[in-house]
Amino acid sequence: MNFLNEVTLRYPDAVSFAPGRPYDGFFDTEQIFRQVRGYLDHLVEQGSSPQQIRTAMYQYGPTAGQIREIVADALRADEGIDVPAESVVVTVGAQEAMLLVLRALVAGPQDVLLVASPCYVGITGAARLLDIPVTAVEERDDGLACADVEAAILAERARGRRPRALYLVPDHSNPSGTTVPERHRAELLELAHRHGVLVLEDSPYRMVSPGPRLPTLKSMDRNRTVVHLGSFSKTVFPGARVGFVVADQLVADDTGRTHLLADDLARIKSMVTVNTSSLSQAAVAGTLLAADGRISELNTAAAAYYGDAMRATLRELDARLPAARREALGVRWNEPTGGFFLTVRVPFRADNAALTRSAEDFGVIWTPMAYFYPDGGGYDGIRLSTSYLTPAGITEGTARLARFIEAEAEAVTAAAARRP
Amino acid sequence: MNFLNEVTLRYPDAVSFAPGRPYDGFFDTEQIFRQVRGYLDHLVEQGSSPQQIRTAMYQYGPTAGQIREIVADALRADEGIDVPAESVVVTVGAQEAMLLVLRALVAGPQDVLLVASPCYVGITGAARLLDIPVTAVEERDDGLACADVEAAILAERARGRRPRALYLVPDHSNPSGTTVPERHRAELLELAHRHGVLVLEDSPYRMVSPGPRLPTLKSMDRNRTVVHLGSFSKTVFPGARVGFVVADQLVADDTGRTHLLADDLARIKSMVTVNTSSLSQAAVAGTLLAADGRISELNTAAAAYYGDAMRATLRELDARLPAARREALGVRWNEPTGGFFLTVRVPFRADNAALTRSAEDFGVIWTPMAYFYPDGGGYDGIRLSTSYLTPAGITEGTARLARFIEAEAEAVTAAAARRP
Repeated sequence: MNFLNEVTLRYPDAVSFAPGRPYDGFFDTEQIFRQVRGYLDHLVEQGSSPQQIRTAMYQYGPTAGQIREIVADALRADEGIDVPAESVVVTVGAQEAMLLVLRALVAGPQDVLLVASPCYVGITGAARLLDIPVTAVEERDDGLACADVEAAILAERARGRRPRALYLVPDHSNPSGTTVPERHRAELLELAHRHGVLVLEDSPYRMVSPGPRLPTLKSMDRNRTVVHLGSFSKTVFPGARVGFVVADQLVADDTGRTHLLADDLARIKSMVTVNTSSLSQAAVAGTLLAADGRISELNTAAAAYYGDAMRATLRELDARLPAARREALGVRWNEPTGGFFLTVRVPFRADNAALTRSAEDFGVIWTPMAYFYPDGGGYDGIRLSTSYLTPAGITEGTARLARFIEAEAEAVTAAAARRP
Repeated sequence: MNFLNEVTLRYPDAVSFAPGRPYDGFFDTEQIFRQVRGYLDHLVEQGSSPQQIRTAMYQYGPTAGQIREIVADALRADEGIDVPAESVVVTVGAQEAMLLVLRALVAGPQDVLLVASPCYVGITGAARLLDIPVTAVEERDDGLACADVEAAILAERARGRRPRALYLVPDHSNPSGTTVPERHRAELLELAHRHGVLVLEDSPYRMVSPGPRLPTLKSMDRNRTVVHLGSFSKTVFPGARVGFVVADQLVADDTGRTHLLADDLARIKSMVTVNTSSLSQAAVAGTLLAADGRISELNTAAAAYYGDAMRATLRELDARLPAARREALGVRWNEPTGGFFLTVRVPFRADNAALTRSAEDFGVIWTPMAYFYPDGGGYDGIRLSTSYLTPAGITEGTARLARFIEAEAEAVTAAAARRP
């Protein structure tokens, strides 16, 4: 990613399809004060004394979070996820949640994490930080296939390793943009349950995507097989660094007594960040309360905006590289219905050198999909992020990208023709 | 610590010398809005556009922090620590800083962390989280002795291990309340430099302690031997969860090029929390800016308050257990000139059972020093925290504590007399 940052700095006039950031035209600085005030008003309404409010805002807070009830309410209102607040731990973004879950689940060098590949770098980074081995399960065009997951589980077992969990982004995945179809979700849950593997469901783009949503894996979970990772970075704002994890799994201790996995996560969190910023929690809670906990409603306009951006990108790509032309070139892409990302497959090696040529000669930046393959490979892929560009940027950017792709594809063809 | 929490919940009417929290009588909820506003005004004065301010507050921020210049200025103004802003990483409290530093420094199972013992549980917890072996160097009554540190370094080397760093709280230590005398500081630095061991200096109580301050180890450091860990939890407010680390050490990469240790910490941080809450950073920066970066001046009243509390506790203890009486009982305590903690040595086993009797029969709660000994032991010690009690609480609490100590000491004497 460092190389990508360098290219971005080196070519400031390039149109960039790289950043997976939310569009920030919806933000208004004064809003922050209203958000925090909203939470303070709520505490007053709940009967908190001035002293209690001062403590809630200024002091060390509960390790598992002071807004877990509000988060649990929102999950119930919006997602059909009905869990007790005690199973929620509020974290410093979903990133901290990943670290906590991996640390809690993995007990020794034989324990392994399965990930859908290509894969979000946050989870592979957290695994690397903890020296946890990662096994990649290659995604197909229509998402992760159960047969592939099961084959990976059995192969790991045969090597003497214990697959502990499978990480995936079931909706509009980062980086590929793939969504796991509804028929595969139940099958995936059943498979994971049967093999005693937890599913780590990370789905930050659901509420900022247009149209109907498939059920979350957690809402379908009848066996406490799913640990649900949550982020408010796309739905409230990234700077707050507030996320959460739902971990209602029962864990037995040495004495045979059981507690929630969430309790273990809180214990680990006390050694990572102690607790999540009370100010940030207040801003997020104030925002949720203002919408009666309906994160979906908060994000109606944002979801429409991102939906338009995705459709505009696909439309422009199609206009620049119509079906016949792209077939001739060996180019194709998927068509996500939401999320921030899509994948373009190209007939040339989409590596850092290609990225540099693209920025230098064509004024357009993208992310090599190769960055997201834990086992290497993926050099035929380009990730386009559509979330941060304006409509004019999308039009200009796709035109530049099409010219770049044409030029690279022709260079490959010419090189092949020159071979004896 | 769980047991302590349970006891605290079980005996709500007990006077508690346990919590190491700042006194919160100085806090005022409306202040939070002024703090954040102060930082926004600063951004305007610096020439930031509304769009830039929106980005600074709402978007993902720089991993190493957006207020590192302000932190570096404060270190220069207050502490004589003159380091470039690039060597500062803003963290989610000092706790995250500990985790980052340990992860960056420790490369394999032969690497070991030395800690002053008794020791703050945050650092031993972070080490446990990362499976890093910890070697305790017992503190003497006047703090850590260089000879003991050197002996520990040599003993580890002889075992084939590599001591990477030594963690200590040089000023008004948590838990013991000990301060490393000035004459030992230079000697400690020289020793660490000579052996290639980094010093992790954690000093959260300096600015909230009365009277003159000894120089920080970092301000005396001429060889980049010291990594300085910082916390705003006591000086601004704990709920913000903002700390920092100064890591100006040069690290060579595989190609022989060098970079700052701070860069490594930021890279690791991107896998832990991505960045520190921008809202929290704004609240801390606004507070610092309002005092021209002089954290000491911000805390004049707080330091006086804590100084009074410490002196009152010592005075009351002395009134309840005068010199002759405590000598007869085998009781003694140290007399810290600042900080939140002091240690009382007792002639009985100060364990969880004793704590329960203390809470149940005498209505007073304290922390067993045994909690803070990485290698076990410490059962003759009681940690008293003086930061969170009111003057009336201190008077009543010490009276109860003296009765408890008398009773326990007499029980020990009686039991000894009964032995044949």
